[in-house]
Amino acid sequence: MTKPLFVGLDVGGTNIKAGVVNDSGKPLAHVSLPTEPHLGQEVGLERMDDTIREALVAAGVKLRDIAAIGVATPGTMDIPAGIILDPPNLKPWRNVPVRDHIHKTFKVPTAFQNDANAAALGEFWAGAGKDAHSMVLFTLGTGVGGGIIIGDLVLEGEHSHGAELGHMKIEMTNPRQCGCGRWGCLEAYGSATAVVKRATEALAQNAAKSRLQTHLEVRGRITARDVFDAAKEGDQLADKIVEETAYYLAVGAMNMMHTIDPDMVVFAGGMIAAGKPLLDRIRRFVKELAFPVPAKKTKICYAQLGGDAGFIGAAACGRQLFLRKTKKI
Amino acid sequence: MTKPLFVGLDVGGTNIKAGVVNDSGKPLAHVSLPTEPHLGQEVGLERMDDTIREALVAAGVKLRDIAAIGVATPGTMDIPAGIILDPPNLKPWRNVPVRDHIHKTFKVPTAFQNDANAAALGEFWAGAGKDAHSMVLFTLGTGVGGGIIIGDLVLEGEHSHGAELGHMKIEMTNPRQCGCGRWGCLEAYGSATAVVKRATEALAQNAAKSRLQTHLEVRGRITARDVFDAAKEGDQLADKIVEETAYYLAVGAMNMMHTIDPDMVVFAGGMIAAGKPLLDRIRRFVKELAFPVPAKKTKICYAQLGGDAGFIGAAACGRQLFLRKTKKI
Repeated sequence: MTKPLFVGLDVGGTNIKAGVVNDSGKPLAHVSLPTEPHLGQEVGLERMDDTIREALVAAGVKLRDIAAIGVATPGTMDIPAGIILDPPNLKPWRNVPVRDHIHKTFKVPTAFQNDANAAALGEFWAGAGKDAHSMVLFTLGTGVGGGIIIGDLVLEGEHSHGAELGHMKIEMTNPRQCGCGRWGCLEAYGSATAVVKRATEALAQNAAKSRLQTHLEVRGRITARDVFDAAKEGDQLADKIVEETAYYLAVGAMNMMHTIDPDMVVFAGGMIAAGKPLLDRIRRFVKELAFPVPAKKTKICYAQLGGDAGFIGAAACGRQLFLRKTKKI
Repeated sequence: MTKPLFVGLDVGGTNIKAGVVNDSGKPLAHVSLPTEPHLGQEVGLERMDDTIREALVAAGVKLRDIAAIGVATPGTMDIPAGIILDPPNLKPWRNVPVRDHIHKTFKVPTAFQNDANAAALGEFWAGAGKDAHSMVLFTLGTGVGGGIIIGDLVLEGEHSHGAELGHMKIEMTNPRQCGCGRWGCLEAYGSATAVVKRATEALAQNAAKSRLQTHLEVRGRITARDVFDAAKEGDQLADKIVEETAYYLAVGAMNMMHTIDPDMVVFAGGMIAAGKPLLDRIRRFVKELAFPVPAKKTKICYAQLGGDAGFIGAAACGRQLFLRKTKKI
């Protein structure tokens, strides 16, 4: 018997990616089409179909070779119902029955999952968490997202709000406001957006002391990357921002180590381009902050699958569905 | 066939409790003996045996009627190994192989669990969480402990540090020191000890304004109960302490709602004697703090089993072991 193949579909605000993935988590091929959510959700659903069809062609396989499809989308959502409810990054979509649509089009068992949960399952299956039994993943980008995997369980939560790791509160006295409107969320401290904001504030107070000031004057803005680069080059103001960022992320990691207590905490997303200097600092703060046993034993790592984690993880969701249907797990 | 019976053993710093529990989580009888940890761990292990034997007698059942035994102890511990490592409340015990000892004595399948995890499973099985699919429980006493149940899974963690809910960090700028030596832990804000400490500090600044000052002068100390009672009687200083306590506990609840996203958050332990006024305030703050869907749907409740949760939960751990061995789950 040939090994089953899976399709993973990763719906983002800008692009829809689809990939054909084998039973070991290795992609045979993947493709990407623009999402263009402003064209409406009917067009969006057709675009998903097209992306899957193109991925099959790119991989040189037929639909009958596919054992299951997994679809990952941003929220808000009802995961068990397979519906995107009111997604901030896919406006004006509302109440889109994604899973049923894909299932109807392709007549293949179809799983549905939150994109950060799917990315976590992807890393767990075929990336940084390959050898772990449990894993907490933080995605660091515009916001801070997350996924929690325990055994073969994706912690979806009872109301599809599991692993909203950016929205644990870590500050009460002097809380920063988060993009979500709340105060003191981890995201308001540890996201790329927060890095830029904190650096910009620090510049306003210390203009003469940082090369970031030049970036700001020349380009009118700075990026998180500028901050991490300047820190590597020895810029003191940038260095302080990076140090604080590492501390905030270590607080997030520790809070998960004292509640979930996973084998591994993984950081993913655009911000890990900051590289080893950031990771080393996070690790140092975790060792200082956490209880001795988890501090010593929990692996703190970067993700390995980059932008492919989403569709690989979506395929992993499809694979779990297939294995459950065939009683293999 | 008669329904199986289970023994639950709850080892505390002061007393060892054992109960015989039926397959619905109802205790037939329970007994209690002093722990006297200072007499050493050999005496302690014999005391555990004696407590179990007395419970069997009190329930009028024979050892052959018992399908499994569950033992719950405070930490630190290695749960899979069944060993208490270096328990602060059971000094001078060290590396005590509790599970193997009980198993050797009674020759009955024996489960081992952290006491807060067991209490959570007890409430989940036969108390506040009876109808829930998942539950996070906070125990409010000298410290803040916790247990997380998802489906039939007790979230032990990979290093036996799961659900150490008192040690999530909720404050960075101006953190209080926790009993564990760390800074900004929930326990340093929401435990009974923290209530007393914060009230005493407030009194030092506002002596004339509170009836708690009289308690302090007459008895040399105040208790958390004094604070909650004074608040009920309209004392403003006490009322402010209770309000803040509710807020801190709501932050803890919200952080779990945004990560675990359970059906239910349950508060247990001595401090819930504070009654409905505290619970109502926690509920109000949770509604203000959390995302709309979990804020609306997550039940926030008090525990129902009181001091019996430990041995009932320990029996539930024994029962899970029995059901797994007999392939019923």
